[in-house]
Amino acid sequence: MAEIIAIASDHAAFDLKATLAAWLRDEGHQILDLGPDDTASVDYPDYGYRIAEAIAAGEAVKGIALCGSGIGISIAVNRHPAARCALVNEVLSAKLSREHNDANVIALGARLIGIEQAKACIAAFLSTPFGGARHARRVDKLSHPRFHKEPA
Amino acid sequence: MAEIIAIASDHAAFDLKATLAAWLRDEGHQILDLGPDDTASVDYPDYGYRIAEAIAAGEAVKGIALCGSGIGISIAVNRHPAARCALVNEVLSAKLSREHNDANVIALGARLIGIEQAKACIAAFLSTPFGGARHARRVDKLSHPRFHKEPA
Repeated sequence: MAEIIAIASDHAAFDLKATLAAWLRDEGHQILDLGPDDTASVDYPDYGYRIAEAIAAGEAVKGIALCGSGIGISIAVNRHPAARCALVNEVLSAKLSREHNDANVIALGARLIGIEQAKACIAAFLSTPFGGARHARRVDKLSHPRFHKEPA
Repeated sequence: MAEIIAIASDHAAFDLKATLAAWLRDEGHQILDLGPDDTASVDYPDYGYRIAEAIAAGEAVKGIALCGSGIGISIAVNRHPAARCALVNEVLSAKLSREHNDANVIALGARLIGIEQAKACIAAFLSTPFGGARHARRVDKLSHPRFHKEPA
């Protein structure tokens, strides 16, 4: 079964979401579009949380989180210990986020990144394996922050 | 009373931490150095959590989080709903993180950013006020993620 990739944005990144979703489908990926469905103003945390919850529920294996700068939605996604979201704007960081951090969500800033750079970052994110070894202990600590209690 | 700025890193960013802490003290800032104290290998989540906990406890108002790429420690800091950590590598994002997201922690990648760019990002982060208005509702949602339970 192909990996399902969740994608969500705010209004500022709606057009980028549509462009990237169409491109990824053309590339043969299965996409779970978590909204929004139009350019009406929304709050980025709601859509970041949707991505994190889809990953926590196993409905998607990876995610793409988009807002104007990428900052707000990356904070929202990372509230959930099942998500490891890397905000990047160049390919080396996208690659390192997989090798070192086993990132399962990539965040991009629609108003700051060009479309070819965005695609190249996503391609690196989707194709780079986790490095394991010493990185695994650190990633495990991200999954169990000491101040977080699981919902009952 | 001057704002206290917490700073922490992993081993890869230890030298950058020392350089930035000295510079900020020269600039008149009060710095809370949360470690590490040498270049021995450590796990970045431990130091990201220290920054988040210092902010949650009111021991610092802002924070600077440093690791090799900035990715891992930014994920760790953002596990805590009291922290809003922006991973940036240029000044516009540092400025937007304050205006739109009321970011209280800035993350930088020691192996990816040059020292003058790092200083310029921190200067923008420290001097830019939050924009409030429509951004306030979104920031409030970051403080109360629906899947997070406060520790008992």
